[in-house]
Amino acid sequence: MVVPAVPERPAGGTTWQTLERLGGTVTGVHGRDWRPRYLQLAEELRAKIMSGELAPGTLMPSETELAESSGLSRTSVRNAIRQLREWGLVRAEQGRGTYVRAPRQRVRRRNTERYQWEKDRVLLDEDERLKTGATEHDTGLTVDDLKFHAEYTRVDANEEMAAALQVEPGTPLLRRVYWTSSRHENAPLTVSYSYLPYDLVAANPDLLDASKEPWPGGTQHQLYTLGIELDRIDDEIRARPPSPDEAELLDIDPGVSVLTVRKTSVDTTGRVVEVADVVMPGDRTELVYSHKLQRWKT
Amino acid sequence: MVVPAVPERPAGGTTWQTLERLGGTVTGVHGRDWRPRYLQLAEELRAKIMSGELAPGTLMPSETELAESSGLSRTSVRNAIRQLREWGLVRAEQGRGTYVRAPRQRVRRRNTERYQWEKDRVLLDEDERLKTGATEHDTGLTVDDLKFHAEYTRVDANEEMAAALQVEPGTPLLRRVYWTSSRHENAPLTVSYSYLPYDLVAANPDLLDASKEPWPGGTQHQLYTLGIELDRIDDEIRARPPSPDEAELLDIDPGVSVLTVRKTSVDTTGRVVEVADVVMPGDRTELVYSHKLQRWKT
Repeated sequence: MVVPAVPERPAGGTTWQTLERLGGTVTGVHGRDWRPRYLQLAEELRAKIMSGELAPGTLMPSETELAESSGLSRTSVRNAIRQLREWGLVRAEQGRGTYVRAPRQRVRRRNTERYQWEKDRVLLDEDERLKTGATEHDTGLTVDDLKFHAEYTRVDANEEMAAALQVEPGTPLLRRVYWTSSRHENAPLTVSYSYLPYDLVAANPDLLDASKEPWPGGTQHQLYTLGIELDRIDDEIRARPPSPDEAELLDIDPGVSVLTVRKTSVDTTGRVVEVADVVMPGDRTELVYSHKLQRWKT
Repeated sequence: MVVPAVPERPAGGTTWQTLERLGGTVTGVHGRDWRPRYLQLAEELRAKIMSGELAPGTLMPSETELAESSGLSRTSVRNAIRQLREWGLVRAEQGRGTYVRAPRQRVRRRNTERYQWEKDRVLLDEDERLKTGATEHDTGLTVDDLKFHAEYTRVDANEEMAAALQVEPGTPLLRRVYWTSSRHENAPLTVSYSYLPYDLVAANPDLLDASKEPWPGGTQHQLYTLGIELDRIDDEIRARPPSPDEAELLDIDPGVSVLTVRKTSVDTTGRVVEVADVVMPGDRTELVYSHKLQRWKT
């Protein structure tokens, strides 16, 4: 067997040493579990929560108890608990301890297929469009499992939104806030902030009326009533901590990150017709993008 | 003009009230700046940092000074500073105050194009493949601007990785850790953990030798030397806080989130040949996915 060469150590020891702790440099150590020990403990506890051995509402063992039973340091135990909080599996209640949470609805959002799927549905009869929507598609839930709220307002484009929509700052926009939750949970699965040029939308007064939501066939069908066909949707994805209000709204630990998608919809004339910012809790959301590659010519 | 209807308030006041604070319910208020005030302050300060009015290394004004000059509460000022930290624009130094950071290299990773671009390059001459790579493509930097490190080890598949690679737990894997940084910075732009079945790779001993990195043409060319052609790459994206070690390695505030991509490469026979976990700092990374939609038949 060829023994892998040890590469030259980079200047500035810190990066290298940190990488060693992260398990990067274990040349010569074959096999074994290469994960940090706090993570191994967190995964053991996760398995117990998943199996129901630690049921929802159970008070978690204290740090001292966990340190004794696992043989790990208090720091490792604390990191393991932090990890469980980030996964959304437990919640710390000030002065009362850490409790196992009820399992939460997960969302696996496959935007690669979703956008074309939504487009194909636009041309279906209303009966068909009423039956299901994109969130059902992502969650495996039915229309009856989901609560949906919409709120419309008219705002002036600030500089950022004006640039995104390719309009002048101050241009009137229709701002739509959507939040969708499972019927069994209070906190939404996603919150979405959508912006369209107001004058564009006003051509169909129904599109200014939030009580028409959820609109069968969604935004692509709403645009269709204006004679607009989409040609492209771009997703720009970022990660950040929640604002305090977002943590409360999504019912997440302030230490849970959020995933954000800025979705830009471009019509067949090359015009940006909608910009939407979608905010999703990082403890229960995955975004999946699938890339089919062209075969080499043989 | 049609006045948007106020939708029925959902049961459970908390969500609704939180949404009001988030600016969701401002029906009747037309125009104005709808962003929270702390964010407006953060954006003003960002503009000053971007323009150089607040230069790298400058000590930021204290909370008291900012509260006085802005007329905002201490809480809003604290949230604005937290926001600047999350954007990676300032760094808090224990007991010394908050300093403006030097601007950091940003990465805008367009995976929709990147994977096909990498595949097309595999069949080029080595001279051509040597000239540039995917990270150059994402950053606009040249080969000379980038430092690249690779570290290879042999490990046994744990349960998670065995499931991802569709092999038995305990199967030997080649684990490769890559980190790439700008020549002007110490902290990497990305850290990538790649796993391939060891026996698959061992057919070409050069692929077990980390000193052959950076390999011209990257992983897709490495697989090509084994007679493997990729058919599909799936990206699974998540957001989470960094582990303490990751925060140190990436030189980010513990309050900066990381974006992670689990990249699964499938060959033309339907076999998973590589699984890679890519970790990117959320203060300076965007992932872009572009979706071209099929036209309706008219």
